[in-house]
Amino acid sequence: MKPAVKVTITGAAGHIGYALVFRIASGAMFGQEQPVILRLLEIPQSMSALSGVRMELEDCAFPLLHDIVTTDDAAIGFRDSDYAILVGAKPRSKGMERKDLITENAKIFSHQGRAINDHASRDVRVVVVGNPANTNALIAAANAPDLDRSQFTAMTRLDHNRALGQLANKTNTLVADISRMTIWGNHSLTQYPHIDHCLVDGKPALDLVTQDWAVDHFIPRIQRRGAEIIEARGLSSAASAADAVVDHVHDWALGTPEDDWVSMSVHSDGSYGIDEGVVFSYPVTCKAGKYEIVQGLDLDEFSVSRLKASEDELLGERAIIQELLP
Amino acid sequence: MKPAVKVTITGAAGHIGYALVFRIASGAMFGQEQPVILRLLEIPQSMSALSGVRMELEDCAFPLLHDIVTTDDAAIGFRDSDYAILVGAKPRSKGMERKDLITENAKIFSHQGRAINDHASRDVRVVVVGNPANTNALIAAANAPDLDRSQFTAMTRLDHNRALGQLANKTNTLVADISRMTIWGNHSLTQYPHIDHCLVDGKPALDLVTQDWAVDHFIPRIQRRGAEIIEARGLSSAASAADAVVDHVHDWALGTPEDDWVSMSVHSDGSYGIDEGVVFSYPVTCKAGKYEIVQGLDLDEFSVSRLKASEDELLGERAIIQELLP
Repeated sequence: MKPAVKVTITGAAGHIGYALVFRIASGAMFGQEQPVILRLLEIPQSMSALSGVRMELEDCAFPLLHDIVTTDDAAIGFRDSDYAILVGAKPRSKGMERKDLITENAKIFSHQGRAINDHASRDVRVVVVGNPANTNALIAAANAPDLDRSQFTAMTRLDHNRALGQLANKTNTLVADISRMTIWGNHSLTQYPHIDHCLVDGKPALDLVTQDWAVDHFIPRIQRRGAEIIEARGLSSAASAADAVVDHVHDWALGTPEDDWVSMSVHSDGSYGIDEGVVFSYPVTCKAGKYEIVQGLDLDEFSVSRLKASEDELLGERAIIQELLP
Repeated sequence: MKPAVKVTITGAAGHIGYALVFRIASGAMFGQEQPVILRLLEIPQSMSALSGVRMELEDCAFPLLHDIVTTDDAAIGFRDSDYAILVGAKPRSKGMERKDLITENAKIFSHQGRAINDHASRDVRVVVVGNPANTNALIAAANAPDLDRSQFTAMTRLDHNRALGQLANKTNTLVADISRMTIWGNHSLTQYPHIDHCLVDGKPALDLVTQDWAVDHFIPRIQRRGAEIIEARGLSSAASAADAVVDHVHDWALGTPEDDWVSMSVHSDGSYGIDEGVVFSYPVTCKAGKYEIVQGLDLDEFSVSRLKASEDELLGERAIIQELLP
């Protein structure tokens, strides 16, 4: 049997973490032939809850789960980690300014970036889920000088999957019939869900829906889906966020399907005119653990303005945490 | 592609339901070639939360999830159902007598048994998770005269998996190396987790652990594991219970491995001297959707007394709900 993959999850006892760790242990992320070791990191006040998560993991008798480590020490949590999934983040508390939220999280993620730099596998792949995810990924990577910045990503896969679901509903098709969806930009209200290149059953999506629907209904609905879930459930998205993490890492590690792509937030290399100093969601293909930004897609004026708006927001976030960038 | 399997889940917006429905939709229960349709049933006051679960299911873009039905009407919920997973149950409220708890749930499950009888597929397979699970399964089956009672089971797989996990920990092995674990009796404190026939790496477990450990540590720990989880998490087992449901149905539908068995609570046929009027956890093998109770296992005096104690408890529960048995 293959050696076990070591997966670190921060915030493992939180709602998303609780929905995530069992799916990883079941084999959903790396397949049914790949053993895993879970390294679960939490803040000290959540260690009792985390011990309960650990017990429940034991109680599942997962054949692929070869070990579980629980800790509140980042040096232990990230030790030899092959994948680091950074879920835990400081939530916005009442009356907190957005600027303070970004700064507080930048401190957490710069600390974790250093711990990853110092303790993780040299091939570690990192996905940031905790918000503001893109800027948190930027600062984590910036604090890991011994690693390549391409090893650090942020998750826009939940937005991507939401967009697939909405387009499938609208066109009365199955998500499996839809390809080439893209989320551009920041994982925030400025994100740009974009169907101009989508195929439904091999035919252009724009033959099936109108631009007006896309602009007036689809885009705002994806942007505000999180709030819609909270209103219905009284709790924020957890299982769907966890599922998106499974998809993000699965596809990064094992590859995207032929003739399709996924959305991942990665360090901009200047593609589509985006500043190289931000982590931006692009359409990417993946193969054998590497991603490539899809090149040469036509963007109309409206799309260009949307990308620019999201880039501006990211540059603004970057300015706020500038002093934490080494 | 195969026709979709229709799976009804009651209590779908509860903690176990929330941990379960995403795993089913991901393909964990029936494999990656089998589409599913989820029919989610809730009580009226949970329909808003259920709409949130539905949205999150859409947001996962599961390729195998072909439709989602949400309802508070059992006639719709169980329509054409191939598998009915009865999770929702009335919890024990403060000051409630055990007798009242059993009676209240017997009313719910007799109603659901009739709805399954009237609306589900003639080949429906039912697993009861809501407690008291064994007696709830008994009354549901008794109220479904057009179906065979072998189509109704209760879940002791969580206890079974917990037992595997504890024995693996104790013997410093992997659960994949352990076979022939058995949970006998009622899914309650009288259950009898039994390692006398267990093999660890092909060798008798009793060569590796002492009878004293089994009696003084192992058995009570499995019996009281639920309380241990609640103490650590502040919430009862959810993800591990959902995982056990996945395993129970998976193995029932697709078969148990050669040379191994699983624990399922099924209608007694008198095997091992147990009264035919109760639903009792036995070691079973499954093949092509049918289970068979493993026969001919030696039971020592201690074991026989444990089975008898659990049988007595089940007969007592049956006496309480006697009037609801047609």
